Amino acid sequence: MTSGSTIDAKRDGANDGEQDLRGDVHNAARRARVASRTLALLNAEQKNRALHAAADAVLGAVDAIIAANNHDIERAKASGTEESLLDRLRLTPARVDGIAAGLRQVAGLDDPVGEVVQGKTLPNGLELVQKRVPLGVVGIVYEARPNVTVDAFGLALKSGNAVLLRGSSSASNSNTALVDVLRTSLVDSGLPADSVQLLPTEDRATVTHLIQARGLVDVVIPRGGAGLINAVVRDATVPTIETGVGNCHVYVHSAADLDIAENIVLNSKTRRPSVCNTAETLLIDEQIAPVALPRLVGALEDAEVTLHGDLPGMVAAGEDDWADEYLSLDMAVKVVAGIDEAIAHIEKYGTSHTEAIVTADIAAAREFTSRVDAAAVMVNASTAFTDGEQFGFGAEIGISTQKLHARGPMGLPELTSTKWIVWGQGHTRPV
Amino acid sequence: MTSGSTIDAKRDGANDGEQDLRGDVHNAARRARVASRTLALLNAEQKNRALHAAADAVLGAVDAIIAANNHDIERAKASGTEESLLDRLRLTPARVDGIAAGLRQVAGLDDPVGEVVQGKTLPNGLELVQKRVPLGVVGIVYEARPNVTVDAFGLALKSGNAVLLRGSSSASNSNTALVDVLRTSLVDSGLPADSVQLLPTEDRATVTHLIQARGLVDVVIPRGGAGLINAVVRDATVPTIETGVGNCHVYVHSAADLDIAENIVLNSKTRRPSVCNTAETLLIDEQIAPVALPRLVGALEDAEVTLHGDLPGMVAAGEDDWADEYLSLDMAVKVVAGIDEAIAHIEKYGTSHTEAIVTADIAAAREFTSRVDAAAVMVNASTAFTDGEQFGFGAEIGISTQKLHARGPMGLPELTSTKWIVWGQGHTRPV
Repeated sequence: MTSGSTIDAKRDGANDGEQDLRGDVHNAARRARVASRTLALLNAEQKNRALHAAADAVLGAVDAIIAANNHDIERAKASGTEESLLDRLRLTPARVDGIAAGLRQVAGLDDPVGEVVQGKTLPNGLELVQKRVPLGVVGIVYEARPNVTVDAFGLALKSGNAVLLRGSSSASNSNTALVDVLRTSLVDSGLPADSVQLLPTEDRATVTHLIQARGLVDVVIPRGGAGLINAVVRDATVPTIETGVGNCHVYVHSAADLDIAENIVLNSKTRRPSVCNTAETLLIDEQIAPVALPRLVGALEDAEVTLHGDLPGMVAAGEDDWADEYLSLDMAVKVVAGIDEAIAHIEKYGTSHTEAIVTADIAAAREFTSRVDAAAVMVNASTAFTDGEQFGFGAEIGISTQKLHARGPMGLPELTSTKWIVWGQGHTRPV
Repeated sequence: MTSGSTIDAKRDGANDGEQDLRGDVHNAARRARVASRTLALLNAEQKNRALHAAADAVLGAVDAIIAANNHDIERAKASGTEESLLDRLRLTPARVDGIAAGLRQVAGLDDPVGEVVQGKTLPNGLELVQKRVPLGVVGIVYEARPNVTVDAFGLALKSGNAVLLRGSSSASNSNTALVDVLRTSLVDSGLPADSVQLLPTEDRATVTHLIQARGLVDVVIPRGGAGLINAVVRDATVPTIETGVGNCHVYVHSAADLDIAENIVLNSKTRRPSVCNTAETLLIDEQIAPVALPRLVGALEDAEVTLHGDLPGMVAAGEDDWADEYLSLDMAVKVVAGIDEAIAHIEKYGTSHTEAIVTADIAAAREFTSRVDAAAVMVNASTAFTDGEQFGFGAEIGISTQKLHARGPMGLPELTSTKWIVWGQGHTRPV
């Protein structure tokens, strides 16, 4: 055997492995499609019963789930994972209770499937009804937290969709244990196990195969950082919904109430700095800056926020400070000449997630809300409110920052499509 | 100079050309973005006035438009274009009247922008309102018919979007003349000319640059045949809406009224065989086949339809006959064992556009409408009804065959996104 043929053999081997993985993902998607046909026809009662049964099954398997999670935690510790990530990964009996409670909460939500969105009778007597139907097969790509595994399953099941889950390898034991419990419970409920499937995590190519399984997968929702989302959006041929990257701003207008401004800036920045609705940049109107700046800077520094900007005592700010999410107790600060500059800055650097204005002036509020192009625009309210549960959706599958299909927090209706059903009595269309 | 450097120079030259074209498309998109900010804030009255002014301008320029169109027609004739395509390309005074009337019709439609889709007051007093907003910058890629140029402009303007048009090179003189008229009219109405721009047609790479102008273009809608749509969907990084590929079926169920079946099959196939809602395959239930088959075959043959299938006297059918659109007076015919086989066939070969059942049996109709996964499902009605004007939308930008954002005929609301506007009085979110 020559070295050339060895290389070829290796390359063939690699291709075979690639092909196998691709085949595995496609076969999983085909099984999901078969399951989705059953799910699409279930009524709410059947789905709710299965959700409660799944909640019971999760509670019944708490020991096995936590044992599996311990393996993930130990492996993560051994590889030097930092405590904040360990905390995201960790399951406790209380967290497992919370996961089960989440399934029961979804059972309590209205079933979006079958909702009549609109309808009419045409002049010729044709009767049109537009109904919500499931999307079909939904892929979710997500990072560390294992509770997402069960949340995504619950929301998908309630909306009549089969789901393909691609979690992170760091949570693979936890996710495997959880999905095993869910699949067994589905079968016990008389529903197809393949309503939920976990895709292999060893190889990043799984994600590529999933997002390129056009015709087999109806939509892929990436949940994670900017890197994951950009990669998915760039390489996908399956329709995707961008979620969660939030470079959010609070603009303190010249007519702001400073007590309100201080509360909102602090809450927007410090409530949970690692989540997408946290504010990353503070814009202060120059008219109010002489009073507002020292007060807000003082309050933020008291809250241990590191400030970045061009002002004395701040860490010098570069382009990245305006453009990127810190997701930490850091905040960029800029004095702007007025609402036009504030809006222009947001348009240049924002990610169309959540933008807030603090003002007592109705004209400024109306101008800001109509001109700022974002999923959510807040007037005298914290950016932290952009969240499906806060918006009263009961649960969310993510926060869309794109303009098509869904924008902002996505609940159950955002996991559906529609279908026109047209009833005639032999109607034909004149030429 | 060595040949190597010549090649490099050539390659650089090609790259420069490529880069120039890419830059041209991106710059057009940036100008569109600037225009879109103005358009987004217009009220319906301002937009309607501009639409009527544009209609007047088109009528006033009828001679120049037809002269430009004559150049296209002569060039097309010289290159041996067939008469059906020439007819699609041709403008006459009556057709120009129709184009202007289309703009006035759009002026008469409800403005989707600003519509409150939903809203509520949360328990904490926060007031949420979800409003329709324009998408922003919309790209349309389309084929021969120059009327699409003006239709797309009108629908985009009414929905507050700037539009980038990439028509076919065969219509380039006509499209240039039309867009010149529209841009001049916009300026006369005090609106930005760059609300509508025609992209160069000489190079197919324009399409690639448009569909990859992520962040500059909000959505691209391809209107055309399967080849165009598949290429756009495959290469796009900008979100796209798939339109118009329709491999539609009529299923004649065992409980069909044969008079109704004959009318619907004939109308679905022969009304306009070249459009996407035409039926391409006839499925006949074997229980009714002994009576239905000879009658329907006779009627179709009388209408000069060539039948493809496995039955005596038909052109033998291969996989392509089931999978592809004929868009001509051809129809595939298959006898199926019952509703399960009919639905399985549609699922395998259909394009989720329009599917029809002919039956007097309510259980069969309900089963077909709930199990068939398509934008429109007809009961005892012709597939020809799937059309924005027929559905009462007044005008359509295309028929979506995807599940995200829009499904079926797309009118003005489908050219919008939404924005949550949240009003507080200093609200912060508890930890």
